[in-house]
Amino acid sequence: MKIPINTFIRNNGQIPLIHPDCLCRVVWEIYVLIITITITISAPLRVIFLELDTTLLLVCDTIGMLTYIFDIILKFNTGILQHLEVVTDRRIIARQYIKKYFLWDIIAAIPFTWFFSASGMESANTLFRFFILFRLFKLVSITSTLQRAHRLKFIKPAFARMILLVFWILIAAHLIASGWILIDGPRKEITGIEPTPNSIYLEAYYWTVTTLTTIGYGDITPETSTQFIYTIVVMLIGAALYGFIIGNIANIIANIDVAKSKFRERMENISTFLQYRNMPKSLQNRITKYYDYLWETRRGYEESEILHDLPALLKTEVSLFLNRNIIERVPIFKNASPEFIREIVMNLEPVVYAPGDNIVIYGEQGSEMFFINIGKVEVLNEDASIYYATLTSGQFFGEIALLLSTPRTATVKAKGYCDLYKLEKKTFDSILTRYPDFAKDVEKQAEDNRRKLGLT
Amino acid sequence: MKIPINTFIRNNGQIPLIHPDCLCRVVWEIYVLIITITITISAPLRVIFLELDTTLLLVCDTIGMLTYIFDIILKFNTGILQHLEVVTDRRIIARQYIKKYFLWDIIAAIPFTWFFSASGMESANTLFRFFILFRLFKLVSITSTLQRAHRLKFIKPAFARMILLVFWILIAAHLIASGWILIDGPRKEITGIEPTPNSIYLEAYYWTVTTLTTIGYGDITPETSTQFIYTIVVMLIGAALYGFIIGNIANIIANIDVAKSKFRERMENISTFLQYRNMPKSLQNRITKYYDYLWETRRGYEESEILHDLPALLKTEVSLFLNRNIIERVPIFKNASPEFIREIVMNLEPVVYAPGDNIVIYGEQGSEMFFINIGKVEVLNEDASIYYATLTSGQFFGEIALLLSTPRTATVKAKGYCDLYKLEKKTFDSILTRYPDFAKDVEKQAEDNRRKLGLT
Amino acid sequence: MKIPINTFIRNNGQIPLIHPDCLCRVVWEIYVLIITITITISAPLRVIFLELDTTLLLVCDTIGMLTYIFDIILKFNTGILQHLEVVTDRRIIARQYIKKYFLWDIIAAIPFTWFFSASGMESANTLFRFFILFRLFKLVSITSTLQRAHRLKFIKPAFARMILLVFWILIAAHLIASGWILIDGPRKEITGIEPTPNSIYLEAYYWTVTTLTTIGYGDITPETSTQFIYTIVVMLIGAALYGFIIGNIANIIANIDVAKSKFRERMENISTFLQYRNMPKSLQNRITKYYDYLWETRRGYEESEILHDLPALLKTEVSLFLNRNIIERVPIFKNASPEFIREIVMNLEPVVYAPGDNIVIYGEQGSEMFFINIGKVEVLNEDASIYYATLTSGQFFGEIALLLSTPRTATVKAKGYCDLYKLEKKTFDSILTRYPDFAKDVEKQAEDNRRKLGLT
Amino acid sequence: MKIPINTFIRNNGQIPLIHPDCLCRVVWEIYVLIITITITISAPLRVIFLELDTTLLLVCDTIGMLTYIFDIILKFNTGILQHLEVVTDRRIIARQYIKKYFLWDIIAAIPFTWFFSASGMESANTLFRFFILFRLFKLVSITSTLQRAHRLKFIKPAFARMILLVFWILIAAHLIASGWILIDGPRKEITGIEPTPNSIYLEAYYWTVTTLTTIGYGDITPETSTQFIYTIVVMLIGAALYGFIIGNIANIIANIDVAKSKFRERMENISTFLQYRNMPKSLQNRITKYYDYLWETRRGYEESEILHDLPALLKTEVSLFLNRNIIERVPIFKNASPEFIREIVMNLEPVVYAPGDNIVIYGEQGSEMFFINIGKVEVLNEDASIYYATLTSGQFFGEIALLLSTPRTATVKAKGYCDLYKLEKKTFDSILTRYPDFAKDVEKQAEDNRRKLGLT
Repeated sequence: MKIPINTFIRNNGQIPLIHPDCLCRVVWEIYVLIITITITISAPLRVIFLELDTTLLLVCDTIGMLTYIFDIILKFNTGILQHLEVVTDRRIIARQYIKKYFLWDIIAAIPFTWFFSASGMESANTLFRFFILFRLFKLVSITSTLQRAHRLKFIKPAFARMILLVFWILIAAHLIASGWILIDGPRKEITGIEPTPNSIYLEAYYWTVTTLTTIGYGDITPETSTQFIYTIVVMLIGAALYGFIIGNIANIIANIDVAKSKFRERMENISTFLQYRNMPKSLQNRITKYYDYLWETRRGYEESEILHDLPALLKTEVSLFLNRNIIERVPIFKNASPEFIREIVMNLEPVVYAPGDNIVIYGEQGSEMFFINIGKVEVLNEDASIYYATLTSGQFFGEIALLLSTPRTATVKAKGYCDLYKLEKKTFDSILTRYPDFAKDVEKQAEDNRRKLGLT
Repeated sequence: MKIPINTFIRNNGQIPLIHPDCLCRVVWEIYVLIITITITISAPLRVIFLELDTTLLLVCDTIGMLTYIFDIILKFNTGILQHLEVVTDRRIIARQYIKKYFLWDIIAAIPFTWFFSASGMESANTLFRFFILFRLFKLVSITSTLQRAHRLKFIKPAFARMILLVFWILIAAHLIASGWILIDGPRKEITGIEPTPNSIYLEAYYWTVTTLTTIGYGDITPETSTQFIYTIVVMLIGAALYGFIIGNIANIIANIDVAKSKFRERMENISTFLQYRNMPKSLQNRITKYYDYLWETRRGYEESEILHDLPALLKTEVSLFLNRNIIERVPIFKNASPEFIREIVMNLEPVVYAPGDNIVIYGEQGSEMFFINIGKVEVLNEDASIYYATLTSGQFFGEIALLLSTPRTATVKAKGYCDLYKLEKKTFDSILTRYPDFAKDVEKQAEDNRRKLGLT
Repeated sequence: MKIPINTFIRNNGQIPLIHPDCLCRVVWEIYVLIITITITISAPLRVIFLELDTTLLLVCDTIGMLTYIFDIILKFNTGILQHLEVVTDRRIIARQYIKKYFLWDIIAAIPFTWFFSASGMESANTLFRFFILFRLFKLVSITSTLQRAHRLKFIKPAFARMILLVFWILIAAHLIASGWILIDGPRKEITGIEPTPNSIYLEAYYWTVTTLTTIGYGDITPETSTQFIYTIVVMLIGAALYGFIIGNIANIIANIDVAKSKFRERMENISTFLQYRNMPKSLQNRITKYYDYLWETRRGYEESEILHDLPALLKTEVSLFLNRNIIERVPIFKNASPEFIREIVMNLEPVVYAPGDNIVIYGEQGSEMFFINIGKVEVLNEDASIYYATLTSGQFFGEIALLLSTPRTATVKAKGYCDLYKLEKKTFDSILTRYPDFAKDVEKQAEDNRRKLGLT
Repeated sequence: MKIPINTFIRNNGQIPLIHPDCLCRVVWEIYVLIITITITISAPLRVIFLELDTTLLLVCDTIGMLTYIFDIILKFNTGILQHLEVVTDRRIIARQYIKKYFLWDIIAAIPFTWFFSASGMESANTLFRFFILFRLFKLVSITSTLQRAHRLKFIKPAFARMILLVFWILIAAHLIASGWILIDGPRKEITGIEPTPNSIYLEAYYWTVTTLTTIGYGDITPETSTQFIYTIVVMLIGAALYGFIIGNIANIIANIDVAKSKFRERMENISTFLQYRNMPKSLQNRITKYYDYLWETRRGYEESEILHDLPALLKTEVSLFLNRNIIERVPIFKNASPEFIREIVMNLEPVVYAPGDNIVIYGEQGSEMFFINIGKVEVLNEDASIYYATLTSGQFFGEIALLLSTPRTATVKAKGYCDLYKLEKKTFDSILTRYPDFAKDVEKQAEDNRRKLGLT
């Protein structure tokens, strides 16, 4: 389905730009995302547990740094999307990047670890080790990657929002737990376990979650002034965060239901009205059932409203797709040009009939024809005593009304719920005026019919 | 009221299908629901407390398994509902079932307990006992039963949603409590009580609820690494779940109030306007009272809006039900055909008058007649000094205006709030043109009236 | 302002009914409310602390019981409100009361205490003392009293809802605390305090609030199985209750803001549009300021929309109140009849002009006159170089346009924001046709004007 | 951008008033705000920790008191804003101030400390020290300062609301913590720390936050009856407050999303419809993309709706800004007067075309011309085989249709999404009738064209 996108955009002789949606770009962003998460998790731990500062991690850090630097270069060479079109002007690209993420990216890419080695300082014992935390600023710019995942619709928006929320909460909890270890928060005595970094971290994370979720078991509590202050701050953040989560969930739930709750409101109005007027129970049931049908089949919305919203070409195509076959089968339209068919299709009006509705009544002056979209209708005689036929989806009736002003020759009754299209004679006539050739053809058909019915 | 539904659907010589809404089917689903809940509760307990693995439970398990297998067979032979109609095509039924629930149902039905017995393994001491938990997958497919209860409208939707929520939370708490026992979570010392399975389970459930509701007394807290990790996970789930509950409750509360809060908003607009323009207090009170009346009697909604929504037949029936009696009592319509009455009924316009409103004013040129739906009106002379009569629900006035263009012969005043129907002369005339026979009758009546009034 | 309401409704020779809104009735309901609250608080305490069962309380109980019995009798003799009117049919009153509250009221009124005395049983030591709790069923029927307070609008609805919520929560907490004492829940050791009923109750209430608010300090926790179960139930209730409170608060906050947030949304749309089209900053500011004005003065709503909603009489009165004075000052309308003035007033169209708007432009063909409701306008010559006058609230201009089709003789410019009323010539003319006498007068005036302007 | 505001408003010889938005006034309010916050924090601490009652603080108190007195005087001399205009009537200003804040301001300004010194009482040991707390009443009147910050739009409204919320919560927590110290609440034993005022306060604040956020560690709990009661009250306040915060956050989140969620709802309707009708996947994708475009570029709103809302002058200016340049470039309008151009601009209708839409079709009877606002179109021959040109933003086509009724001479196709303006011939003609001079010019142009095309 998806058209493969070229990696490079040719740009009038300049160095070609990378397309923001090409596969290479997407792969690279995922790679940067993974590296950033890894560093976000490891960096605070390195600051706290000095023994983690091994050669392996130094290598990792170097890889991260190089990735970050290369990412900056790439971003200057990647087109950006505006109003769904790729901007290829390098000045606009650079200006936007510098305004938004450049500063954070460059700070995250500074090779602090190298500076320490070069300057001969033992980073481990000094405050300099905190500089490693600057790497975390990369989190600012990966938000754009996460939003892009959102835009490309790999997942549902509400679900994407929840995942992002969980992601940020876990990152926040990790940082808060690291802080708790740093200020040397109290530990619960676990019998028989030597306090390894693992168990220390686990307890700190446990304490953090306890506090952020407002559970507060109280088995681990602050003891010194610093810890009191730290705890107060974490509690306030936790309360706000928890409120934010609840607010988000409430919002997501509310949005899931918007269409449903609007429809329910409409139905409740009707119920109130029906009860206020003491409508008989059977009529109330039939009305309720009708609304159930509307909800089941179209979530309460009108086809005509939806088509009205679309621009010309799309509207035509949707209408044509829905109705061309049915129209072309009508004998009257046998010789019509595609343009004529198109105009007819655009002017069909969707109508719904409930079971038992008389669509056409014997003897009445008809002024429209009908096409059955979904459902079944019965053709009956004057007093509904003789059954002629059942018409179903894709069939039509009442076409004579477009040609002649004669009374209906049968009664047509909806069997179940029916979605029909109605074509009014006056619409048909006004379209006809613009197609003089076909108008002559129609006139001849009308004459034939008149002769058949012995009207002339 | 409810039409009894045949159990079987005849299907052109094939094996007949079961109707999804027939009584047998409903009874069976309730039975499966009960069995599933029983197994959901007992299975985790059997895994934890090995002594529970008695013959009785083995029999129960066998019954459950057989029920599940039979349920699968039944589901392949039950029609499904689509757009309120029963689908009888066996291929569609099978495809839908396989796509949705088949996998979970088949896993839940595998007779693991028999395999163990057959293979001679002592399930109790091995990891195999965990296979019993596969029975829980049946929970996936009973959701459809719960949703059906919803659809059949045994209970109010908001209430149904709350019950479902509570159901799932209790199930979740049960599973979490079982997990806590499994990892051998710490127990509070209860003096004088030997730790029986009952008391162990009670404490685990207590701990779970403590955590899920974010209360966190802290009298039972994790002690080993496994327990720490388990607690962190449960706390995160608990926080999310609690947020979900609050979000749902907030949503339900918001939806209860939609109509009311919209109406309140409208009234507040009006108050703002009235105060901004310094309207006299008595006028403000009367306006407020008028809106109270609208709210009390029709929740602020217009009858005409509601009728407009309905399809042709239902609209006619509702209108006829509301107004036929009143119309047929009007002398002018004595000789009218039912079709004519029907059209008149469809074209009545509902209007509300506040107490003291002059509906008809003496001497004015009248162009409509009125039917009293609810309320009382007073007929008075020119200067309201002489009281002629009080008309009430089911009566009408101003009918002369439909025939002749003479000034009104009395003033009619609303006594309390009045719901009237208005019939305009021009509507009456345009309907009349389509009924030439009755038109002549009306013409004659008009002549008679004119003669009586001495106008010719 | 309030019309005093007669206590009794005369009812055609029958025993007169009490009016539901009369003063006596209101005083009685407040008295019953106070008695009920007193009993609700004392009854559970009497069950728990047997020493409280003194003569004084027995007297109180008797008073309560007599009150309840008398209340039942009264309710059968009080009219009820339906659709804002008092129903006086005794059968309807009795049926409604029996359907709703009668059962609870009768249970609450049974004199259990007397039975015990009569039967010689010592209620204190037996289970019979729990029968006192039946008194609490009276809470069911006082909800109607609380709702009535709501309806009579002594307080704002959102505020009333909050107070009711707090009331029920405090009652619930009291009952839960009593239950905790009954199952003999653990007490915190308070040094130096003998466990008096007061301190026991205080601690139980403290524990209840701790749990209901999901704070859960954990200094008082369950110890026996009964207590575990009781705590689990209370925690679940607490969580639901707390969710309910939060949901309510969220809903109240959301409803406070509906109008504001809708308006803000509208403004944000406009901002988006203005920025998308790169509108100059000064124009953007002016547009923003215009919407600020609309919000400040009318909460963003249109006067015409509000008037459109009202029924005929109220609409006329509001319009007349707003505009009669201004209209009567116009020389053209000097000889007009009140009916004519009324019709003119009903057909004025409110318009808003922003500072600097040209309302009337020199030389243009005028077809409407204007009345200044609020604001100031400047009358200027052709090129705005000469200043003629400033017109302000209550003045009018452009009246010649209603008589003659001559070009405007001056430019009129809005000085600040202006609320004007516009009267179109065609509206004026169509009203005039129905008032032939005044039409002649107007024709004469037009002639005079024409002669003055030398047009004939 | 902002016009500097004069400090004083000249008021016809009276003492000049201060303008409420002048710089001096703003600076003064910020100063009062800072003083008030300082006193709010220090006053309760002085009541609790008597040793804080030093000379320095007495001086501070005196400064605060003088500030408060001067502030009262200033407020009587500052204009107030009503409906965006400055009220200069001294009586209105005084009345409003006295009604709202005067009482609280005067209480806050009473020099209690001086009274004590004067009366020779040692305030420290008596209940009189509580009088210092009256200073806190100043908090009532600084809310107006905070609201003003809101009104002046220094920050976003939702953000402003959050900051205010945090501000009040921190103040409330401070007061609650002070109360806890006052009733001598229990302290946690912190090893090695002498209980200094600092550490006592820190613990009390820690306990307060623990309770307000519903975390409730339970390491500090009440012990005496007074403390129990205090804790119950604080817990209830905390629960309400926390509910209020969550409600607010939920509301803010919901409001952020209103436009988006409405649009999403619309799209979901369309998806439902497309799936219900089994539309081909490619057509579904194109429709989805069209709505993405609408959202990206205009948040789903119609330009015409927005313009419709604006008053006359602003509407004209916005339209002129958007379209004058493009119109004036059209050869037909070369000789048109600015008034004519203005009317044309006001009557352009914005339309959107999707990629591939045929805007103009070869051979069709044209009745409108188009102006390209944003986007590109291609001009092609009859069967799209020959490419003539690409027109882009600021260009136009189809102008001949305004003059003559000839068939279109080329097909015009949208290349990407296009925002065009449409000018219908009938609109053009009806405007033309009011400009007879220019009409002649147009007639001549039409003749020229006709001659060129050989039609005469």
